[in-house]
Amino acid sequence: MIFVAVLGYGVVGSGVVEVIKKNRLSISQRAGEEICVKKILDIRDFADSPDRELLTKNSDDVFNDDSIKVVVETIGGVGIAYKFTKMALSKGKHVITSNKELVATHGPELLKMAADNNVHYHFEASVGGGIPIIRPLNNCLAANEINGITGILNGTTNYILTQMNRHGKDFDSALKEAQANGYAEADPTADIEGHDACRKIAILSSIAYNEYVDYRKIVTEGITKLTLADMHYAEMCGSVIKLVGRSVKADGKIYASVGPALINKSHPLANVEDVFNAIVVRGDAIGDAMFYGRGAGKLPTASAVVADVIDVVKHSENSGKNVWTINTEENMMDPDVMETRFYIRLKVNNRDGAEELVKSTFRSVEWIPSEIKAAKEELVFISEKEAEGMLKKKVKELIGNPYINEVAGIIRVLED
Amino acid sequence: MIFVAVLGYGVVGSGVVEVIKKNRLSISQRAGEEICVKKILDIRDFADSPDRELLTKNSDDVFNDDSIKVVVETIGGVGIAYKFTKMALSKGKHVITSNKELVATHGPELLKMAADNNVHYHFEASVGGGIPIIRPLNNCLAANEINGITGILNGTTNYILTQMNRHGKDFDSALKEAQANGYAEADPTADIEGHDACRKIAILSSIAYNEYVDYRKIVTEGITKLTLADMHYAEMCGSVIKLVGRSVKADGKIYASVGPALINKSHPLANVEDVFNAIVVRGDAIGDAMFYGRGAGKLPTASAVVADVIDVVKHSENSGKNVWTINTEENMMDPDVMETRFYIRLKVNNRDGAEELVKSTFRSVEWIPSEIKAAKEELVFISEKEAEGMLKKKVKELIGNPYINEVAGIIRVLED
Repeated sequence: MIFVAVLGYGVVGSGVVEVIKKNRLSISQRAGEEICVKKILDIRDFADSPDRELLTKNSDDVFNDDSIKVVVETIGGVGIAYKFTKMALSKGKHVITSNKELVATHGPELLKMAADNNVHYHFEASVGGGIPIIRPLNNCLAANEINGITGILNGTTNYILTQMNRHGKDFDSALKEAQANGYAEADPTADIEGHDACRKIAILSSIAYNEYVDYRKIVTEGITKLTLADMHYAEMCGSVIKLVGRSVKADGKIYASVGPALINKSHPLANVEDVFNAIVVRGDAIGDAMFYGRGAGKLPTASAVVADVIDVVKHSENSGKNVWTINTEENMMDPDVMETRFYIRLKVNNRDGAEELVKSTFRSVEWIPSEIKAAKEELVFISEKEAEGMLKKKVKELIGNPYINEVAGIIRVLED
Repeated sequence: MIFVAVLGYGVVGSGVVEVIKKNRLSISQRAGEEICVKKILDIRDFADSPDRELLTKNSDDVFNDDSIKVVVETIGGVGIAYKFTKMALSKGKHVITSNKELVATHGPELLKMAADNNVHYHFEASVGGGIPIIRPLNNCLAANEINGITGILNGTTNYILTQMNRHGKDFDSALKEAQANGYAEADPTADIEGHDACRKIAILSSIAYNEYVDYRKIVTEGITKLTLADMHYAEMCGSVIKLVGRSVKADGKIYASVGPALINKSHPLANVEDVFNAIVVRGDAIGDAMFYGRGAGKLPTASAVVADVIDVVKHSENSGKNVWTINTEENMMDPDVMETRFYIRLKVNNRDGAEELVKSTFRSVEWIPSEIKAAKEELVFISEKEAEGMLKKKVKELIGNPYINEVAGIIRVLED
């Protein structure tokens, strides 16, 4: 019998307790031992909960109980969760978490601490909810050099973009609907500004490239500036717009970004809709592999947490191989040298003049014809590959030109 | 240093040697030890091979060498591969294979033998080529009760169907093109008749439901009867036709089948094209998760084999938990009771009479209107859910009716 404590009885924490109870028999068959939740730590009262006898507000009940071998941290954030995680690891308890913020911020320290105490710190549920992605990256793709990762990593924004694209809602209405359906929080900033996706691509990249990728160094942009006009133009060139987290490693340096991107409809990520997530991993032997599923939600996330619990029961030794080194040299590529094609939408007051300017500023461009009302005041095109730094300069030139009223949209084009 | 022997220096075997050499550094970092191919067993001559110094025709060089801890079997078939696998396991060597035929046929015996000798028998590469699917099923989804698996499991047939659907080629031309491009063998029977997909769904189902599913009991149908007319009608109702392997478990019984199916275009499997494979797993906690990638090919398959090698280096103890029990009771559902919607295409000589007959034989049906030339001689519809046994009876009635010349197509409709 393996005793587990759950810290935080919120959506994910209560889901973990539910899954462990519900699938008790098959879980114990797979783990080789029965797994049992002994304590649930939460400062709140849950008088009517079916788990009320397990609930405690006293952390000593968890940390001073040597029979508890595994701690599930589903508190979130980098405050008390950080403190409790260190306490559990230092007491020789395995820690399993869904807390992407903590992993992205203190991952190197916590993984090192786990290795030093010969226990595990696992976080499959921190990225992609229930989708198996972290263990496949660590194990199933271990024979590959990973060259790149591209993913739709945030369900809230993908739901909003699906609503905009499919039902013609504007951003504000789509956001309100997401909130009404429980897919977006009252303060949606972390999702719509790309912060959530940023932490997730940082975690995936750290695993893929065997060194810590600091999320604070990732170029991050949200979806708040996207309009239905952009969706329309994307459709005109056989694409959809998604919020994409992406990283590549080339010549020993890592480039990572989060932002809206035009994705050709033939790309497997283009069909990922609503709250679903998907991650494409490119390895030198396997080519592209994609992992797809529900990126959030009580039971999917709990499924990933409990899989991690089963894993530490089966393999409790920590070989110390999954520690993220912090590269003392700068390991991130200067994002300004990264070359990408860009979709650019201009509001103009003189079409011919603006068109000439674009032709002289950019090399050959692919014009997107338009049938929408505002067409005569808009000029939309896709550039050839431009270094991001050079693009910024060219956009400045456009802004300074009297024929152009506004650079209304700049969106990366995802290459395959 | 871990010494490995590779049995069979064909496409996959030589790929395994190549990947181990190419990614030597990162592999040894992940495995915690250097992995080195010591012998390659093959009866053929490879005088010009870069690996000629490792090649041997004498199996004693492998089986009597105690320093060889891992044997990679990439011979294929159930003859010499079966013999060598048992020999290796009985000598306490881990065996890794890509041989779906052997696993599907002798899996229970070989897994038991491995457990008895405290070594592993792993076969990630036997299904889905490089796609991580077997380890995710075993580990990442371990917290779930698996209710169903649906997959596009054969790259050859998917390539043929993509050619038919996208380029309007008929089956024979598409097959010839697949052969010319190396995607189909000179004798394509195992692929186009569904035998390959059948073994793969048997293996996946055995893992998912924790008991051996005998591939000989799986209802299997290939793609040789599919026509461009069927593709056209599928398109008319927003679907594509794919060769689908599928299994579900309900009330303790397993239903499994392989055959063409109409898949609605909004289903994630509908967009899996060319030689790609994808597998959707439905779990009670995670919901649907999909795994997508190259289902065959030298390096993708080698990637999966080498990941298994790394895994046994990291976790050499066999807890005996991954043995497939053979259920002494009949564990397969009578396929005749399985309820499915069917697409049915009739060649008729009296439209009105045939239509009346269909209406009286089936409950409400969904007619597919047609604009193609032969339309007036064809009647196409999708039935409500019918038990497969009942459907066969109804089809017999249709065949016996003078208004109907031929039942030209019967295809299952994949429900989500």
